[in-house]
Amino acid sequence: MSANRSEFDLIRDAFASGYPEAEHVLLGVGDDCSVVAPPSDTTLAQSIDTQVAGVHFPQDAPAHLIAGRALRCAASDLAAVGAVGQGFHLALTLPDNQNDFIDDFARGLRDTAKALNLPLLGGDTTSGKQLIVTVAVQGWLPLEQGLKRHKARPGQDVWLTGPVGHAALALPTVLANPAQDDEHTAAYYHPDVHLAFGHLLLSLASAAIDVSDGLLQDAHHIARASGVDLSLDAQQIPTAVSQEHPQWNACLSGGDDYQLLFTASSSARDRIRACALTAGLEHCGIIGSVHEATGDGRVIVQQNGQELTFERTGYQHF
Amino acid sequence: MSANRSEFDLIRDAFASGYPEAEHVLLGVGDDCSVVAPPSDTTLAQSIDTQVAGVHFPQDAPAHLIAGRALRCAASDLAAVGAVGQGFHLALTLPDNQNDFIDDFARGLRDTAKALNLPLLGGDTTSGKQLIVTVAVQGWLPLEQGLKRHKARPGQDVWLTGPVGHAALALPTVLANPAQDDEHTAAYYHPDVHLAFGHLLLSLASAAIDVSDGLLQDAHHIARASGVDLSLDAQQIPTAVSQEHPQWNACLSGGDDYQLLFTASSSARDRIRACALTAGLEHCGIIGSVHEATGDGRVIVQQNGQELTFERTGYQHF
Repeated sequence: MSANRSEFDLIRDAFASGYPEAEHVLLGVGDDCSVVAPPSDTTLAQSIDTQVAGVHFPQDAPAHLIAGRALRCAASDLAAVGAVGQGFHLALTLPDNQNDFIDDFARGLRDTAKALNLPLLGGDTTSGKQLIVTVAVQGWLPLEQGLKRHKARPGQDVWLTGPVGHAALALPTVLANPAQDDEHTAAYYHPDVHLAFGHLLLSLASAAIDVSDGLLQDAHHIARASGVDLSLDAQQIPTAVSQEHPQWNACLSGGDDYQLLFTASSSARDRIRACALTAGLEHCGIIGSVHEATGDGRVIVQQNGQELTFERTGYQHF
Repeated sequence: MSANRSEFDLIRDAFASGYPEAEHVLLGVGDDCSVVAPPSDTTLAQSIDTQVAGVHFPQDAPAHLIAGRALRCAASDLAAVGAVGQGFHLALTLPDNQNDFIDDFARGLRDTAKALNLPLLGGDTTSGKQLIVTVAVQGWLPLEQGLKRHKARPGQDVWLTGPVGHAALALPTVLANPAQDDEHTAAYYHPDVHLAFGHLLLSLASAAIDVSDGLLQDAHHIARASGVDLSLDAQQIPTAVSQEHPQWNACLSGGDDYQLLFTASSSARDRIRACALTAGLEHCGIIGSVHEATGDGRVIVQQNGQELTFERTGYQHF
C-alpha cells in the first residue's frame, strides 16, 4: 500500500538535506519529534514568528526570498535576547499545486539556514488558501543570562545597532516588483540578524528588543515592560533618509529592519563600541537615554529640546 | 505615544494568565523569546503541528474546541516519542474582527493546557484570510532514550492503545453541526493524549507513532522507516464499528484518533499490559507482528490467512 505518496515524498525530499548539521541534533526531520541535546548549564530561548502572504510579504514574491526573510525575521528574536542559535522548526501552509514553489522555497530556506548556521529540526506542511510561513526558532543562553525587555533602568543609554527605515522605504519597490532583489530591497528580504553581536551584549546591555514593529513602537515595548520613559534624540537616530526627507517619519515607524534596540549602563560604552566595531556595525550608537516613568512607557523623540509628535508609531496587524 | 494599542492589549490579555505554571519556565509570554531551563541530563523533544480551517476542522467550529483539538493533536507527538510535556508556543492566524473568537479560543486553549499540564511559553498572532492554528510543543526525554519510528525489528509485536475510527466516523456530524460536542464528536475534538503511557513505554517499546494520518498510513511510516513489513490481524484491531459495518475500512484509513501504534519485543508483553491497565487503556492490545521487509515498508492486513486490500490508506493534505 503505497498509493498517493508523491506529495509526502516531494516535501520530504525538498527539505531533507543541505542544512547545517550540528552534533547537538540527535534526531531531525522525519520522526514525530525532533530531539536535541542542549549544552549543559544553559537555558533554552525560543520564539515563534508567522509571515502571511499579502500581509507580511507580497503574494507573488519569489519563494526563496520569502523563505529567507521568514527565517531571518524569526532568528532576530534570538539575537534580541543574546542567544546562540540552535535550530528551527517550520510550519508551511501552501495553496494547492505549488510543487515548483516548494523547491525554490526550500532552496532559499537552506541558503539562509546555512548563513545563520541554524539546522532545520522538523516541520509540518499543510494546504490552505494563502501562503503562510511560521518559523519556530530556538537557541541557548548561559545560565541566568539573557537580555530582556524589562531591564532598562533610568540613567542608562539607549542604543541602536544601525539605520532604520530601509525596509520600510523599499516597500513600494517590493510591492511593484517583488522579484527585484537589489541593494534597496536587500534590507527588506535579507535583514541582518545580529546573532553574534546580541550574544556579545549579554554581559553589557540591560534590556533589548529587535526592531520589527517600528523603532517607536518597539521602544515603547521596552519602556512599558521596564516601567520607564525613553527619550530619543532625533539627530542621533541613524535613518535611511535624512531628517528633512518627507519619509523620515516613516523610518521611525516603519518596522522591519531588525536592528537591535538596547539599553546599557554608561560604564559599558567603550566595550559596546569595541564589540560593535568587531561585529562590523559602524552605525551602532547611542540614540537616547532612559528616564523615570511619567506614563505607561512613554517614548519621547526630541530635537533641540523640542518634543516631536508622530501620528503613527508602528505597524499593527489588526 | 500609545495610539492603536487595543489589539496588542486584547491578545496579550486573552493569553496572559490561567495556564499551568512550572518552575522550569524562566520567561514566558511577552518578551522576544521564552526562556526555559531544561532538567539536567535530558534531551529536548519538539514538534510543530498546523491545523487549517476547512481542512483540519470545520470553519465554523466553536473556537474553544478548535483550540483544544489543536493543542491535543500537537501534544500527541510528544506522547509518540515518550516525552514528558514541558510547554508550547502558539502561532495563530485570524481573519479580521475576531475579538469574540479570541476570548473563546483562549479559554479552550487554557483548559486543555491545564488538562495536559503544558504551560503556554509564547506566541504570535497574525491576520489572514483563513483561521490557522500552529502549535509547537516541547518536552523532555531522559538521555539516550526516546521512541522512534525506525526501531521496529522482525519478530516484535505490533500494539495499538485503543480503537481507531471514532474521529473519522464523527466527521459527518462535525461537518453538519460543528458545535455538537457529545460522546461521538468527543473523539474528534478531545482526542486522548497518551503522554503518561508514552513515557512508560520508553523502556518497553521499540518504535512508536501516533495515529494521525490513519492506522494503515502510519503503520506504513513505521514499516518504511524501520525497513520492515508489518502484518496486522484484522480481527485484533479495535475499531469504532465492527468489521461487517460498511464504514470499517474508513476506521483503518481515517486518521485523527491519536492512538499510539507501537512495536515491542514479546518479552515485554506482560509489563506493557500492566502499564496499559494502570493508564486505563482497556482496549490496548497486540494487533500484529513485524516481519522482514518484502517491499518499501509494506503493511499487510490479514484475515484468516487472506490479505485484505484497501483503496485508500490515509489522509493526504495535497
